[in-house]
Amino acid sequence: MEPIKKVAVIGGTHGNEFSGVYLLKKWQLHPEKYNSRDLEISTLFSNPKAFEATKRYLDVDLNRQFRADLLADPTLGNYEQSRAKAISLFLGDKDAPKFDFVLDLHNTTSNMGPCLLLVQQHPMYNLMAGYVKMKMPEVNISRDEDHKTRDEHHLLATMGKFGVIVEVGPQPQGCLRHDVLEWMETLTDHILDFLELYNKGELPKLPEQVEAYRFLEELKVPVDSEGHRAGTIHKDREDKDFQPMKKGDPMYITFDDEVITYQGEQTVYPTFINEAAYYDNNLGMSISEKVMIDVYSKHKS
Amino acid sequence: MEPIKKVAVIGGTHGNEFSGVYLLKKWQLHPEKYNSRDLEISTLFSNPKAFEATKRYLDVDLNRQFRADLLADPTLGNYEQSRAKAISLFLGDKDAPKFDFVLDLHNTTSNMGPCLLLVQQHPMYNLMAGYVKMKMPEVNISRDEDHKTRDEHHLLATMGKFGVIVEVGPQPQGCLRHDVLEWMETLTDHILDFLELYNKGELPKLPEQVEAYRFLEELKVPVDSEGHRAGTIHKDREDKDFQPMKKGDPMYITFDDEVITYQGEQTVYPTFINEAAYYDNNLGMSISEKVMIDVYSKHKS
Repeated sequence: MEPIKKVAVIGGTHGNEFSGVYLLKKWQLHPEKYNSRDLEISTLFSNPKAFEATKRYLDVDLNRQFRADLLADPTLGNYEQSRAKAISLFLGDKDAPKFDFVLDLHNTTSNMGPCLLLVQQHPMYNLMAGYVKMKMPEVNISRDEDHKTRDEHHLLATMGKFGVIVEVGPQPQGCLRHDVLEWMETLTDHILDFLELYNKGELPKLPEQVEAYRFLEELKVPVDSEGHRAGTIHKDREDKDFQPMKKGDPMYITFDDEVITYQGEQTVYPTFINEAAYYDNNLGMSISEKVMIDVYSKHKS
Repeated sequence: MEPIKKVAVIGGTHGNEFSGVYLLKKWQLHPEKYNSRDLEISTLFSNPKAFEATKRYLDVDLNRQFRADLLADPTLGNYEQSRAKAISLFLGDKDAPKFDFVLDLHNTTSNMGPCLLLVQQHPMYNLMAGYVKMKMPEVNISRDEDHKTRDEHHLLATMGKFGVIVEVGPQPQGCLRHDVLEWMETLTDHILDFLELYNKGELPKLPEQVEAYRFLEELKVPVDSEGHRAGTIHKDREDKDFQPMKKGDPMYITFDDEVITYQGEQTVYPTFINEAAYYDNNLGMSISEKVMIDVYSKHKS
């Protein structure tokens, strides 16, 4: 097993998600908060122009620009497309990563609490899930598009040999909540502690299995004949991320006061409920199924 | 007493505060929701360009452009300065208002619940406060800069003979919560019902006194030597709008993990705690004092 030594912790990939930006600022004031571990940790403020503008992005979503073919195309030249290439110069090509691990820090306006998003598969992630869940039981573990190859993936977190997303909410865009920052800091600390212990072969006894949620699909809000939003999340579903939704449960309320219920046969677990960043695409929520992670499995998933 | 018949209900003055925009959309689908009363109600979507951009404003805050001298200055020509003049053409000059009442709909990211903001003084507002509080006890009544004359006031709500702001939160910018929209709708309905009953002299028996909060001042977050934010609202104060803050209570936490406490002698009641729109100015919260409104007082305050 190759050790996971060289780590990049990245904040501000979306400029209006403030926790990552200010976690890096805290670390700048007190480097001992992160660099006292037996790891080589670099930090990167990934989208400073979007932060200045208090926007998710200036031109396109930076966190959708890291597919191998997009990075290889020099004609894609707007701000985030250029910034993605600049970042890949720092982190290395997709097929020759300079970092063993990329940790990308994000916020959501949804009530998702502290989340560990696993976007790739490897037995190491199973151990990490077990460790994090043991240390911080309130963490929700989500598996998101983890069947994709590194080249196919468009996420910044896939630019290292390994990588995860830390996603914490609820926090309004352009706002910094103390409780949410604490969650992000604590979860990030546990992940870095895990890497150190993993490298040394000194992991404590972990639970055999932990619960996780695997992404199924995105659901749209109701729209009118012109494609405009015709309703919003029903108040009985608002804030209930990771809580079961079964057939007949209220999902949406239209501006005609009609309640729209969930019609799927399978009980699902919504995430990113009423996320402000997804209004452009009229997305209301994502849905996941509950899965178990075998912590000591040598298999990928 | 002149009746208050001609009413303008205005939404979208800040383009990323969605409840007002969508309340007007609901009314468009079902005009009987508002126009069945014995009032002449017009609606206005005040900042469509900012809504399109999901921003508070494009150039300057529209809700600071309605001072008489600003409206009279044709050289102030950016988008919101122009839009303010266009709106004043519709609503009438400050000294010759065409509307008896202007109701301006707003959201905050702060946990302020449904709020009635009184920005001017007149015995009518005392009765309105009594009526609203009796019908909807969870409403917080705030008196904000109500010593200013109409000409001095820069708020859109001061463009009628009378006017108030409905301010409802918490809601992230660029997001539409069902519960927050319901609060706005219910509070707006009560205000319109009040105007109808007031005109007819048919108000029910009201409480003699109701509690309100009078704005004192805005407080800044701690900043570093470069003027950048050096901390945020302490988690013990977050979400506690309208709850007493006394000397020694935690207010802020710096990025050095230093807790900054309130040092005033007077117990105050914070509002707009950690409002995302006020990050530009490094404002952390406003503080108010508790006051009583004598509902049947013939005096202004």
